Amino acid sequence: MSALTTHFLPVLRVMGVLLTFFALGVALPLGISWTHSDGLHAIWAQAGAGTLLCGVLLWVGLRRHKRELHPRHGIILVSLVWVVLPLFASWPIREALAAVGRPISFSGAYFEAVSGLTTTGATVLTGLDTLPVSINVWRTFMQWLGGMGILVLAVAILPLLGVGGSQLFKAEVAGPIKDNRLTPRITDTAKGLWGIYAALSLACALAYWAGGMTPIDAVMHMFSTVSLGGLSSHDTSFGHFGSPLLEAISVGFMLVASCNFALYFTAMRKGHWRGFWRDPEMRATLVALIGGGLVVSAVLWFKNVYGLLEALRLGFFHAVSIGSTTGYATVDYLAWPVFAPMFMLLLSGIATSAGSTGCGIKMVRVLILLKQAGREMRRLVHPRAVQPVKLGDKVVDDRVIFAVLAFMLVYGVTIISLAMLLVLADVDPVTAFSAVIASVNCMGPGLGSVGPAAHYGVLTDAQLWVCTLAMVLGRLELLSFIALLTPSFWRR
Amino acid sequence: MSALTTHFLPVLRVMGVLLTFFALGVALPLGISWTHSDGLHAIWAQAGAGTLLCGVLLWVGLRRHKRELHPRHGIILVSLVWVVLPLFASWPIREALAAVGRPISFSGAYFEAVSGLTTTGATVLTGLDTLPVSINVWRTFMQWLGGMGILVLAVAILPLLGVGGSQLFKAEVAGPIKDNRLTPRITDTAKGLWGIYAALSLACALAYWAGGMTPIDAVMHMFSTVSLGGLSSHDTSFGHFGSPLLEAISVGFMLVASCNFALYFTAMRKGHWRGFWRDPEMRATLVALIGGGLVVSAVLWFKNVYGLLEALRLGFFHAVSIGSTTGYATVDYLAWPVFAPMFMLLLSGIATSAGSTGCGIKMVRVLILLKQAGREMRRLVHPRAVQPVKLGDKVVDDRVIFAVLAFMLVYGVTIISLAMLLVLADVDPVTAFSAVIASVNCMGPGLGSVGPAAHYGVLTDAQLWVCTLAMVLGRLELLSFIALLTPSFWRR
Ligand SMILES: [K+]
Ligand SMILES: [K+]
Repeated sequence: MSALTTHFLPVLRVMGVLLTFFALGVALPLGISWTHSDGLHAIWAQAGAGTLLCGVLLWVGLRRHKRELHPRHGIILVSLVWVVLPLFASWPIREALAAVGRPISFSGAYFEAVSGLTTTGATVLTGLDTLPVSINVWRTFMQWLGGMGILVLAVAILPLLGVGGSQLFKAEVAGPIKDNRLTPRITDTAKGLWGIYAALSLACALAYWAGGMTPIDAVMHMFSTVSLGGLSSHDTSFGHFGSPLLEAISVGFMLVASCNFALYFTAMRKGHWRGFWRDPEMRATLVALIGGGLVVSAVLWFKNVYGLLEALRLGFFHAVSIGSTTGYATVDYLAWPVFAPMFMLLLSGIATSAGSTGCGIKMVRVLILLKQAGREMRRLVHPRAVQPVKLGDKVVDDRVIFAVLAFMLVYGVTIISLAMLLVLADVDPVTAFSAVIASVNCMGPGLGSVGPAAHYGVLTDAQLWVCTLAMVLGRLELLSFIALLTPSFWRR
Repeated sequence: MSALTTHFLPVLRVMGVLLTFFALGVALPLGISWTHSDGLHAIWAQAGAGTLLCGVLLWVGLRRHKRELHPRHGIILVSLVWVVLPLFASWPIREALAAVGRPISFSGAYFEAVSGLTTTGATVLTGLDTLPVSINVWRTFMQWLGGMGILVLAVAILPLLGVGGSQLFKAEVAGPIKDNRLTPRITDTAKGLWGIYAALSLACALAYWAGGMTPIDAVMHMFSTVSLGGLSSHDTSFGHFGSPLLEAISVGFMLVASCNFALYFTAMRKGHWRGFWRDPEMRATLVALIGGGLVVSAVLWFKNVYGLLEALRLGFFHAVSIGSTTGYATVDYLAWPVFAPMFMLLLSGIATSAGSTGCGIKMVRVLILLKQAGREMRRLVHPRAVQPVKLGDKVVDDRVIFAVLAFMLVYGVTIISLAMLLVLADVDPVTAFSAVIASVNCMGPGLGSVGPAAHYGVLTDAQLWVCTLAMVLGRLELLSFIALLTPSFWRR
């Protein structure tokens, strides 16, 4: 009983708060459904009210259990969030699809909700263009909400937990953290980040609208651009628009959203951008994405797939889209030389910055790893040399390097284990590995049967659950969830 | 000039010594060619004499440059050995094949020699049963010679260089090493290891002969069993014999050869086997290989590929053969559910012990990694806890853990880079990744177009060179070769 009251109930209370706010989000599809008269408003109203009720009941019922949360609670909370929220988010999806005569399984709806909230953007649905608009709004809005949550997770919560060395990603905004409590500074940090996120979203939606999208398409694609989610309201994804201008706008906003949001916040508060341009991770992210665009364009051109201009347009759009873990496509790039899609898939694992809405290993870890590998090679020649690993002006502590290396190990083992599980469930190797990599990187389309022109609906329910787990693990930066499985976590 | 005299010439002198002894090895195929009258003895005599001449010239010509070798020289030497020896070893292969009207390219012959000497056992040749016997003897004997060299490399040289934390694998035989010199203890250690290797070889050949092989087949398959090489004189590999008894003998010797040879040496010198049975790496290797056999058998049985007995026979033989990096096959296991071959391929990366003739990551590194990952997870919950990583009774130094983690990183990056290079050269993803993994693990057969029933002759010369590089990198435990590429290596 005592472990329950001290550990679970305070966490459940916060879950109630989150659920209450999440319920308010359902107002958007409800409003859209009402104004577009797509006949689903009763379902949205019901789902919103039900979620609100559960949230308020938890919040109020456990109000006596308000207390400071410690790192251990943080791990339970973020894990619980990714299990419970999709449950409520998938409820109206399933009801609405059944109402329009296109029922899907519970596993499929849950997958779709996890894919939305983790900003993965993989889908089990087809015929998106003929779906009631409120469903598409909800699908893309989930990504935007997920992106909002992830900013707080990445900038405020994970650094406190020290997941995979992420204490190093701690933005200056947060200031030196003197205690281990989760609550005090998170609200301040969150407000600042959400301000940037809202401003970026407004700019993106207006740009899409000015670039030729309908207002509702502009909003939906803004949702999935700034969150690096990549869901679309069209079966042909971004190819629906066939507009180089819109693609260029999209590339611009994806690049902006791939950098650490805390950098924007700091730059704005300080009134100058010097620190921003000096940030080694931001530079590496842009070099990786733009360099990746050059590589893919070069492959397309040299292998005579397209002329130079078309190769540049398609190469850059897809390298940035896939590399930034967004996952938009304008063509079926599986028809390209297979090096290109594989290269982009690998890029999605490393390119985005910590503190962005992107996923995967994160560029700062890659930089630390590269410097550590360089140090080991120098040690091979000069065994007694003592050299610190430095990133920018900062010396990286050995403990952080250990944590990053452990993260890489868990990342590799997770991908191999989950992919082998899919292979055991009769998925072909290319589809299995690419689906798991695309899921762990919260990117979306894979290779083989789950490519950009296909969808995850081809997988069985059991196979979908493996991908669902992969998305959640990727979003949680792996270790925090796995920590739940270690016995020492549950010991006092 | 000074760098040349201090660094290169002493190393070249040792290269001359090695080449001289290597030339003596050509006496075996020469003798076989003579007694079997296959008409190739002139070629073997010529190649042997030529190699001997080059070796003696270097040895005698540089006799004034005899000096102690330091770690840096060790790195140059072992890298040079894997470039120069295959050159001389491939020479008679190419000449002999041309003489019997089956010419192959220089790249193919070099690949075959590297595959032999690194104990990989991949082949570009077909129609093995109709090859002159002296060629098959040379192919398999190269593996045995390579295995002999690798024992010294793994037990005496790499630990001194500290490659990827391998100072930890240092066997007790070597005793505490007080200085950084390469020469003093290596001769003693080498003699002991070679004694074990010779005794094991004799036992294996006699067992194969008693089990029903012809004497010459017994010797050739002994060569490729104790070295974990896996080349065969038959196109159908070990399936040629169709004998459960021979397969059982083979499994036994592969298991023995997968453990650390220094353990056998220590046990014999001490007269008791207590330390042997307590060695955590030896236990883990046997658990991995035998457990792997159980897993593969279970998959074959539950998926109704074979009856229980046949599933056990085939599952154990192939899991041990592939997992121990030998690479014998009795059936085309690509016809099995694809989980099984992929699982065995992954097993080949981790199962063998350091100080064996096996290749890949090595079990001791895996154990260190597992313990380090466990420590990081405990740190997530108890951030201030200080816990050393222990293996057996020994505390593993943080520096060793760093080196092992760096090794893993380089291992992963090497596999991905080389496989992507193959993909760029138009190899399909499954073939590319499996060929590189099989090469880096010095195992042999991959999946796709380079499976157990196929051969590497389907690859182009350029593609073969990528695999050749992968085999050499894997054999050198990666870092030592890559150290050559770092600028600080060449600074004084
Ligand atoms: K995405
Ligand atoms: K082998």
